[in-house]
Amino acid sequence: MSENIKKVPAVVVKRLPRYYRYLGELMKQGIKRISSNALSVKMNVTASQIRQDFNYFGGFGQQGYGYNVEHLHSEIGEILGLNDGDTTVIVGAGNLGRALASHNTFEKRGFKLIGIFDNDESIIGTEINGIEVMSVDDLEDFLHANRVDIGILTVPKAAVVETAERLVKCGVKGLMNFSYTELNFDKKVAVENVHLSDPLMTLSYKIKQK
Amino acid sequence: MSENIKKVPAVVVKRLPRYYRYLGELMKQGIKRISSNALSVKMNVTASQIRQDFNYFGGFGQQGYGYNVEHLHSEIGEILGLNDGDTTVIVGAGNLGRALASHNTFEKRGFKLIGIFDNDESIIGTEINGIEVMSVDDLEDFLHANRVDIGILTVPKAAVVETAERLVKCGVKGLMNFSYTELNFDKKVAVENVHLSDPLMTLSYKIKQK
Repeated sequence: MSENIKKVPAVVVKRLPRYYRYLGELMKQGIKRISSNALSVKMNVTASQIRQDFNYFGGFGQQGYGYNVEHLHSEIGEILGLNDGDTTVIVGAGNLGRALASHNTFEKRGFKLIGIFDNDESIIGTEINGIEVMSVDDLEDFLHANRVDIGILTVPKAAVVETAERLVKCGVKGLMNFSYTELNFDKKVAVENVHLSDPLMTLSYKIKQK
Repeated sequence: MSENIKKVPAVVVKRLPRYYRYLGELMKQGIKRISSNALSVKMNVTASQIRQDFNYFGGFGQQGYGYNVEHLHSEIGEILGLNDGDTTVIVGAGNLGRALASHNTFEKRGFKLIGIFDNDESIIGTEINGIEVMSVDDLEDFLHANRVDIGILTVPKAAVVETAERLVKCGVKGLMNFSYTELNFDKKVAVENVHLSDPLMTLSYKIKQK
């Protein structure tokens, strides 16, 4: 199985969260079954692309019958590992860190925020969404005492490499980097560099085409 | 020209900001020329994919010589419309709105933030990054007095549709939606729905594969 999964192209992997979200919306609307054609209209991807994407994971659907929405939602959630209860910490309790910590979407997707860290004395000890902000000096102690899967980096650019290395050294396996830089680790660590200006640039392009 | 540009697939458009960022990094490092092979390693895309992508816009490079970094950076910036000085407003001055307003990356990409709006009396009148937060009641007046190209929506989910419609009615051509919902407008309005939990789900998947 694992050698099959490894062949899944990055663009397909990037579409999985979108499928998952859309299917969740359909469930909320009480929709039980959807054809790849109808799903393709919603997703703005061709129906054949959808079938191709799903074939990487063994299909899911019966030709002519469409997909069972709840089953497909649950299967994709499983593939994404959303049922594993991955734990996260946020390092950097500035505006962006606070926004991410306060929002319940991460939790809804199965992630557990178990720690928030900052180096600002005036913030340490305050609570965000019921979690006390800890000193970044205590990062290693916390990481040794608690299994943390994913580190969310909302520290300033200048601090991101050092912070990332500290997390990885203590066993963190994935990093979500919001510091407007490109973090690169060896293959052992998964990294998602999030650039919030990218969609703004895409938007600028799209406006020009209208 | 415009009928050619219309055929550019969405995935290619999504890669343009990444190319733009990488080339900017190369310029900072003083690199003048890069082969599609070297660029492909950096971008984690195949060299033939890069050539294919660039062919949508007429090429840019000479076989064997590689690409002139500064020229390519400037061409892609032009295609993205980053030299047009698009104006933006942020509606919703909560943590996320403040984070986006405080960061200078949008400005560096050529976007001009000219207004921030909220409905919270305790925030209205305060300054974020030198811009006074205005009452959302004054949105229409402001939009009639100022050309605004892009609206950045960091309002709560329940307010997003109404806010988006108010912006569009006053001539805003693009919306960047951070409200964890899927906004859909007719083809006249460009929308980028940003889901901050998507990269977290992708990360969860990648961790499972390691």
